[in-house]
Amino acid sequence: MAEKARLSLNQMTVANWSVAEATEGCVRHGIGSIALWRHKIAEAGLDACVQHVRDAGLHVSSVCRGGMFPAPTEQERRKNIEDNFRAADEAAAFAADSLVLVVGGCAGVHIEDARKMVADGVAALVPYAHERGVRIGLEPLHPMYAADRSVLNTIGQSLEIASTYEPNEVGVILDTFHIWWDPQVAALIAQAAGRIFGFHVSDWLVPLPDVLLGRGLMGDGVIDNRKLRALVEKAGYDGPIEVEIFNRTLWDADPDTVLAQVIERFEKFV
Amino acid sequence: MAEKARLSLNQMTVANWSVAEATEGCVRHGIGSIALWRHKIAEAGLDACVQHVRDAGLHVSSVCRGGMFPAPTEQERRKNIEDNFRAADEAAAFAADSLVLVVGGCAGVHIEDARKMVADGVAALVPYAHERGVRIGLEPLHPMYAADRSVLNTIGQSLEIASTYEPNEVGVILDTFHIWWDPQVAALIAQAAGRIFGFHVSDWLVPLPDVLLGRGLMGDGVIDNRKLRALVEKAGYDGPIEVEIFNRTLWDADPDTVLAQVIERFEKFV
Repeated sequence: MAEKARLSLNQMTVANWSVAEATEGCVRHGIGSIALWRHKIAEAGLDACVQHVRDAGLHVSSVCRGGMFPAPTEQERRKNIEDNFRAADEAAAFAADSLVLVVGGCAGVHIEDARKMVADGVAALVPYAHERGVRIGLEPLHPMYAADRSVLNTIGQSLEIASTYEPNEVGVILDTFHIWWDPQVAALIAQAAGRIFGFHVSDWLVPLPDVLLGRGLMGDGVIDNRKLRALVEKAGYDGPIEVEIFNRTLWDADPDTVLAQVIERFEKFV
Repeated sequence: MAEKARLSLNQMTVANWSVAEATEGCVRHGIGSIALWRHKIAEAGLDACVQHVRDAGLHVSSVCRGGMFPAPTEQERRKNIEDNFRAADEAAAFAADSLVLVVGGCAGVHIEDARKMVADGVAALVPYAHERGVRIGLEPLHPMYAADRSVLNTIGQSLEIASTYEPNEVGVILDTFHIWWDPQVAALIAQAAGRIFGFHVSDWLVPLPDVLLGRGLMGDGVIDNRKLRALVEKAGYDGPIEVEIFNRTLWDADPDTVLAQVIERFEKFV
């Protein structure tokens, strides 16, 4: 079983909480790490959030998210890269393990162009982030998000980009919801050794209630999170394991009850 | 532009029509090929359907579908294979280009076991089908269907199974809805040369209205059907192109209007 000490709460699992509420929740439930989302950071202000996290004594496993590079015009793409610089600043302020990139989809541009824009965007971001001590975590998203969220859809594709940088600059974020189906998943995780900057768990419900907000608690679906954790650990990753569950039903529930469930399921199924 | 002579109507595009109505619709709209679904064949009876298709002078591009092999018990799996024999009988009765397999998902069994059950099921089916002159078309389904419909999710994986059989026994069915996102799609289509038994088109709407019933008419989404057709043709496929659109809105519309739209979009975007 996964030890609770490894658990990091991805803030979107309790989406109705502010950064202050989420950090306090972590303290109350004995969770030592948190992953923060930028729109939540913006609500309270960066300095106040850094103070909350410091007061709570929490480790920040990631800041979510940079990326969203593709756009039809050069001007928009430049604006997106500027926004990624701000994301890197925030990740630096929290000394987060990495800045997670959800690279953006292909709506509005051809998918091959979108993939080129992603490579260009990462290239523009890496030196800026590296100077500030921020590692870039490329997160391959499930292929069902290729149109509207990410044209980076496999571990292989992510490693291809990452491998053009130093291992302390760019790596991958492995989320079981996005990668569990891949027939090459075991080989690809092994191949990612030394480049795994984060590991996320949740579950795939059957039938899937919603494309975006249908993730389940570990144990409620078909993903073998434990097996994937073993593969990730065999590849050398021993950092925080984020529980990241986008689910409207959980969001509507009492967040403290959700946290108790998250811990129970984490210990039982991860 | 794709010539109308290449168009085959997959019956599920006009799901409210019987086999008789769909064949008559094809005649009315000058469509020369049709793909038939087994639950529709069962409604009218096999002999009557064969007669309808013969009277209409239609070519049958495929019978949909065999597959659905994985199951927790040996008895259920044997029953599934028996059902595949009946599917092969039906494909033979129509002299269809192939029997399409949607191989089944992994709910109830571990995904790796499910994939093994699929390989075993195909192995049991191929000799029976071959004796009856029926080619087996393995259709990789989008990864979002891995849990409940198909653990065969990439062209590569499908070719791996197909390549253990003769090129006139087992091939692949390439459906743009399922494969468009794949970063390796061009290389994999080239690799499928000589094994492409069918080509299906539709579109991926943004946002996706529904996991199952959210496909769009060509031109309404992000898929470059024309480019994928060119790749498939470069790999040597010159057979019928099925339009297969699972979409509740289209199902609720007047089927003759839908057919007119299908032809227009086919000529314009495929």
